[in-house]
Amino acid sequence: MYDKAMHALGSTQSGIRELFDYGQKQAAIVGKENVYDYSIGNPSVPAPEAVKKAIQELLEGDPLALHGYSSAQGDGWARKAIAENLSRRTGDNIDADCIYFTCGAAPAIVGSLRALRQDENTEVLLLAPFFPEYTMYAQACNIKAVVVPPDTENFQVDLAAVEARISPNTQAIIVNSPNNPSGVVYSRETLEAMASLLRKKSAEYGHPIFIICDEPYRELVYDGGEVPYVPAIYNNTIICYSWSKSLSLPGERIGYFCVPPCVDDSKNVYAAIKGAMRTLGHVCAPTMMQKVAAKCVDIMPDLRVYDQNRKTLYEALTGYGYRCVYPQGAFYMMIGAPDGDDNAMSERAKKYNLLIVPGTGFGAPGFLRISTCVDPAMIQRSLPAFKALMEEYK
Amino acid sequence: MYDKAMHALGSTQSGIRELFDYGQKQAAIVGKENVYDYSIGNPSVPAPEAVKKAIQELLEGDPLALHGYSSAQGDGWARKAIAENLSRRTGDNIDADCIYFTCGAAPAIVGSLRALRQDENTEVLLLAPFFPEYTMYAQACNIKAVVVPPDTENFQVDLAAVEARISPNTQAIIVNSPNNPSGVVYSRETLEAMASLLRKKSAEYGHPIFIICDEPYRELVYDGGEVPYVPAIYNNTIICYSWSKSLSLPGERIGYFCVPPCVDDSKNVYAAIKGAMRTLGHVCAPTMMQKVAAKCVDIMPDLRVYDQNRKTLYEALTGYGYRCVYPQGAFYMMIGAPDGDDNAMSERAKKYNLLIVPGTGFGAPGFLRISTCVDPAMIQRSLPAFKALMEEYK
Repeated sequence: MYDKAMHALGSTQSGIRELFDYGQKQAAIVGKENVYDYSIGNPSVPAPEAVKKAIQELLEGDPLALHGYSSAQGDGWARKAIAENLSRRTGDNIDADCIYFTCGAAPAIVGSLRALRQDENTEVLLLAPFFPEYTMYAQACNIKAVVVPPDTENFQVDLAAVEARISPNTQAIIVNSPNNPSGVVYSRETLEAMASLLRKKSAEYGHPIFIICDEPYRELVYDGGEVPYVPAIYNNTIICYSWSKSLSLPGERIGYFCVPPCVDDSKNVYAAIKGAMRTLGHVCAPTMMQKVAAKCVDIMPDLRVYDQNRKTLYEALTGYGYRCVYPQGAFYMMIGAPDGDDNAMSERAKKYNLLIVPGTGFGAPGFLRISTCVDPAMIQRSLPAFKALMEEYK
Repeated sequence: MYDKAMHALGSTQSGIRELFDYGQKQAAIVGKENVYDYSIGNPSVPAPEAVKKAIQELLEGDPLALHGYSSAQGDGWARKAIAENLSRRTGDNIDADCIYFTCGAAPAIVGSLRALRQDENTEVLLLAPFFPEYTMYAQACNIKAVVVPPDTENFQVDLAAVEARISPNTQAIIVNSPNNPSGVVYSRETLEAMASLLRKKSAEYGHPIFIICDEPYRELVYDGGEVPYVPAIYNNTIICYSWSKSLSLPGERIGYFCVPPCVDDSKNVYAAIKGAMRTLGHVCAPTMMQKVAAKCVDIMPDLRVYDQNRKTLYEALTGYGYRCVYPQGAFYMMIGAPDGDDNAMSERAKKYNLLIVPGTGFGAPGFLRISTCVDPAMIQRSLPAFKALMEEYK
């Protein structure tokens, strides 16, 4: 009567969402201020005032033009604004026809995977730790997701593990940096070594292996760190972006994919993704938000709160004896479970009304994710709970 | 390197879009006022002032709540508002958990098809004339689209033709009424007869055959006509809706699917579609527009211009000798090509800078679509062109 696999996916919650819902229920019992919810990666800094102003200005224009269909790939003027901004920032030569507006980064990834599919043997590599929904996007395209275990030392990339898993069926590898859930930024060195490996393997197999670069956290980097522009390091890179984090618009679902001119046969790769998007019902991203994004394209996020949060947590938790992965970007950090059991640690933490997400779902067993996009006052209130949790392991 | 079928779809334009683009170029040559563009189904009546007001009010609230993630299926308050409105209007018992917000009706259809897929033999019936993108949605789900030829007399449904094409692999039939491109509204009699056939065949094959009811034109009906509520006639009906036409928000891509409680095992059917939407990247439709739709749910479209346009065109064209299908709803009407060649007639019409879309792409060869969502002054200017075109056939 219906597809069993789809039904299973629609009937189960993600671990993150389960924990969040548990927190909401617990708040009703013990009081909201006594629940320390580090589960959800929802920006805690509101959208900049410029977003509101942009919408207000647009509302004064012709409603037929404002709310009318754009072409499938999006409004030409808005795509041009995005392309020019990207070109300025990267030194690349992006034009409007490299850009396709999407409802967030997810459809951009699904469409890219679908377009790159060859046959029932096609594979995509996922670098652990990774956003768990990637596996569903591969499933939607009938592509096999091959997990590369994490480099648990620095949470860069274990290239030997990548090489061992690349096959003639590998069409793409998803790169997410700054990374959810680790908060790590892949270094230029890491990316160059990966590029070198992918070039070697592409030549060996006689077809390009694409990097699908999922970068909604691109602008969220601290300590003056660099987020390298991947197409300048590896030509066959498709960029998938969302303004969810940088403009604090997660619910508005506005993003794009970009096929830069350095991609082999770039116009045809763009056309193939465009065709995939058409079949999937991902055409004409919401037009007003396309224009808002274009008007706000030069605005950089205010990182002060996230920056202070990660410092506060990193210093306190390392002081208590936690092993913390140093967070260089995004608004996440990871801690190690002292006994290697992340699920048990997440359960234990609940006793203290402390909600931290097991890493197993991200492909990083033994680690837990802490979202640092939270109220700084909650961090202060939560520190005794973190301390008490660690005491249990001593 | 990339999927050839997706590339083909992304490299070719729809016939409608080609004609529209031709019109834009021609306007630069002969002047905008001398091109009579009946190609595109884009509302010509602006969004009601209430939409602007709703957005302005929402902007005064907390931006974190306004632009934050909703659950995958959408904001609970907004879904409740939609459900209550639907229940009031239909007498059905719809609650918030029957509703899932989508980016327009297209994703709702794709997700429904994906959820209902059984195996590589699964089929969906398309009742000609139909929106051509349906075939791509079926393709995305690896489902075979089986076309049922039109009832060219009344453009209701040729039930004998439906029966001849139903097979044990038929999982669904897409019903689009008021219809694009014919402008016809399926009568209660038609729907009851179809329901009877589907019940018989469901029993015969031992599994339900679903109606996927694509109804963005639900509120666009003239002469006080009725658009029957399909689930009250046939229980296994999934409703796919969009505010594109009723609120003149086609670019904002806000809609929903609804699995009413009368559907067999309705909670699990909803869960299966929800799971499909998750894999396809169709989660959390744009949050601000969810709330706008909920705030404006009681507003009915202003049909006066569309109504007058269809009357003007119907009267004039029948007077010139055209065979016109009487348009009861939506903002389209169809005319017959006197020699049966719709493609040739569309080409001939270009000589008069008259842009009308061949019906072949809609599964209705021998007919052409006229969009009546146009400037009434353009209709007046275009009448001599229509007259001259018909003269060629006499």
